[in-house]
Amino acid sequence: MKTIEEICAILEPVKRDHPLVHNITNYVVMNFTANVLLALGASPVMAHAIEEVEEMVGLANALVINIGTLSRPWIDSMEKAARGARDRSIPIVLDPVGAGATRFRTETARRLLGEAPVAVLRGNGSEILAVAGAKSATRGVDSVSGSQDARGAALDLAKEYGMVVAVTGVEDFVTDGTRTATIANGHPLMGRVTGTGCAASSVTGAFCGVEKDAFAAAVGALVSYGIAGELAAVCASGPGSFQIALLDALDALNTEVVCARAKVTLS
Amino acid sequence: MKTIEEICAILEPVKRDHPLVHNITNYVVMNFTANVLLALGASPVMAHAIEEVEEMVGLANALVINIGTLSRPWIDSMEKAARGARDRSIPIVLDPVGAGATRFRTETARRLLGEAPVAVLRGNGSEILAVAGAKSATRGVDSVSGSQDARGAALDLAKEYGMVVAVTGVEDFVTDGTRTATIANGHPLMGRVTGTGCAASSVTGAFCGVEKDAFAAAVGALVSYGIAGELAAVCASGPGSFQIALLDALDALNTEVVCARAKVTLS
Amino acid sequence: MKTIEEICAILEPVKRDHPLVHNITNYVVMNFTANVLLALGASPVMAHAIEEVEEMVGLANALVINIGTLSRPWIDSMEKAARGARDRSIPIVLDPVGAGATRFRTETARRLLGEAPVAVLRGNGSEILAVAGAKSATRGVDSVSGSQDARGAALDLAKEYGMVVAVTGVEDFVTDGTRTATIANGHPLMGRVTGTGCAASSVTGAFCGVEKDAFAAAVGALVSYGIAGELAAVCASGPGSFQIALLDALDALNTEVVCARAKVTLS
Repeated sequence: MKTIEEICAILEPVKRDHPLVHNITNYVVMNFTANVLLALGASPVMAHAIEEVEEMVGLANALVINIGTLSRPWIDSMEKAARGARDRSIPIVLDPVGAGATRFRTETARRLLGEAPVAVLRGNGSEILAVAGAKSATRGVDSVSGSQDARGAALDLAKEYGMVVAVTGVEDFVTDGTRTATIANGHPLMGRVTGTGCAASSVTGAFCGVEKDAFAAAVGALVSYGIAGELAAVCASGPGSFQIALLDALDALNTEVVCARAKVTLS
Repeated sequence: MKTIEEICAILEPVKRDHPLVHNITNYVVMNFTANVLLALGASPVMAHAIEEVEEMVGLANALVINIGTLSRPWIDSMEKAARGARDRSIPIVLDPVGAGATRFRTETARRLLGEAPVAVLRGNGSEILAVAGAKSATRGVDSVSGSQDARGAALDLAKEYGMVVAVTGVEDFVTDGTRTATIANGHPLMGRVTGTGCAASSVTGAFCGVEKDAFAAAVGALVSYGIAGELAAVCASGPGSFQIALLDALDALNTEVVCARAKVTLS
Repeated sequence: MKTIEEICAILEPVKRDHPLVHNITNYVVMNFTANVLLALGASPVMAHAIEEVEEMVGLANALVINIGTLSRPWIDSMEKAARGARDRSIPIVLDPVGAGATRFRTETARRLLGEAPVAVLRGNGSEILAVAGAKSATRGVDSVSGSQDARGAALDLAKEYGMVVAVTGVEDFVTDGTRTATIANGHPLMGRVTGTGCAASSVTGAFCGVEKDAFAAAVGALVSYGIAGELAAVCASGPGSFQIALLDALDALNTEVVCARAKVTLS
């Protein structure tokens, strides 16, 4: 098992190797997600056409699928891309945005889990509960369940699908069914900017693109991202300036800062 | 009839109750709209799939339909969502972006007005004139008619459809066919950032989500939003920094500031 | 042949006449592109529905087609809009985003070149090489070929299609097959913000909307835009604040500043 120092050091190959992250994500966050990945040092690409997703994913170091603004043709492309990633052993991160809010989202999230092995499922507490089949209350796309409540569901899902599940919230919880991590980094302003959760999934994709241990990659991603949020909050006067400062902080981030500020408990 | 103080106080339940605003809006402004709503204290959701719009609108406190980047499948979803909102008495705000520029937009705006009762129609002068069937000149999506010219059209539309019409411009004009309000708040930089008009419609949706009197909600929304623009302009060195400052100002806004700075004439 | 001073002065009619630029572009950059055009003084419109593209392009001073997030229905609209622009002698700028990364993109870019005369083709080195049929390596949507390598391909394409080709990179290269320009303006931070290349294409569209000599328009656009990037970098602490400062710099830009800072070699 990797130490916290080793996990924090995964940021280095992300910044050095510029992993290519293929995102099939929602319209609302595409721009911000691309800018987060660029600021981090990764290389984003967005492509959703059924004609090209397989070829594009073949160039990528990771595939991130986000169901935030879903429609039927996009689901077909997500499935095709997922199968392409599976065939090439490219890690997949799934973000079940709004699962629990509508049956269409809950069912699509579950269907995608069945389509190809997912490396990391990342969502808020309500979404993870909904994917696990628990009664939860997703209000639009925002969680009304604490990440604490979803820990049992995360453990069950991790074991059932042999994947890492990351529940983000005030405290993040990551598990592969055996190992667990709780992360107390981050800042409340992250919940006041649209797409910060979605971008966390894409950051996780970037980390999975350079690190085979998906548990370590997910923890490293969420710690780094949370610390960038803390540093951004220092210079922000509200959610607008915070969003901009977050990009600057991701750009300036390095392993020493992450190691020094990490609030991770592994077990 | 509500006083100006009562209208300015509608900001309080918006900030306290976080109304869920379901937006079916255009690609250009989705991110900014979501961030405006979050900064204001509301809760945004974007969903356009025909499979889920009815279920999603059932969770919402208001539905905002914006035709800025239209296509046939989206119109079907807008109509289904509108009928769903009507059946549940959820207020609808319609933003007829670019009506008058192409027949497709003008006809879609009119068709949506016929589909379900609209609480508030918000547009610039050219758009309102176009929806009313007057010869107007919409240049792309920007108004070339002053809001003044469109006041007659707004009164006619308000009476014909039993709805509130808000014409925004240098001075905003709001009417329900009987009551009228002119609002002299706002700042020219608002016209230099894309989506400020679209976001005004979503802010109006948030206010309609907490206030049954749609006339008061629309006036309260436009006054609050205009004042946020004025405050943002103080710290801005151009349209880029203005956009960010507007989000910070919406976050910091409170009823006292709105009451103190409101330039509203009711009649 | 225009002098460098005359080329730099094209910024003036852009700021004065607010050319309407019809963009059929990708989801990732729509918001930023619209804000870049507004900051520059141009008037953006985004419209992609097959039902309205012909009518919309008829109102425009330039059409910008960008294949960054492609799908079949969008290609149909791009082709229809291109034919509409051709019939009305409205200049077309084509941005072959990601050509070379997937066959779908490379083929679509070539097909669009055959559909209607293009005034300016703008891409990075890899994309231009791919459109020219050379073996290139486009990694996602980022260039791995220097703009230098693509100069031969640019000259060939310019002669074959009778169009201007602009290859952007550390140094930009513009040619109409006879004249050439190299531009040494710009800043490395431009590569750290998504959509700066796409926005350069739309800025080129704005310049083509006020200047018939497409070679001069493309050079004028890239010089102005690069200088705005240099000025923005002075106030930026990272890619987030740079993006905002770029919008402010485009707003503040004038002909004297452009003339004084231009690093252009014409031949």
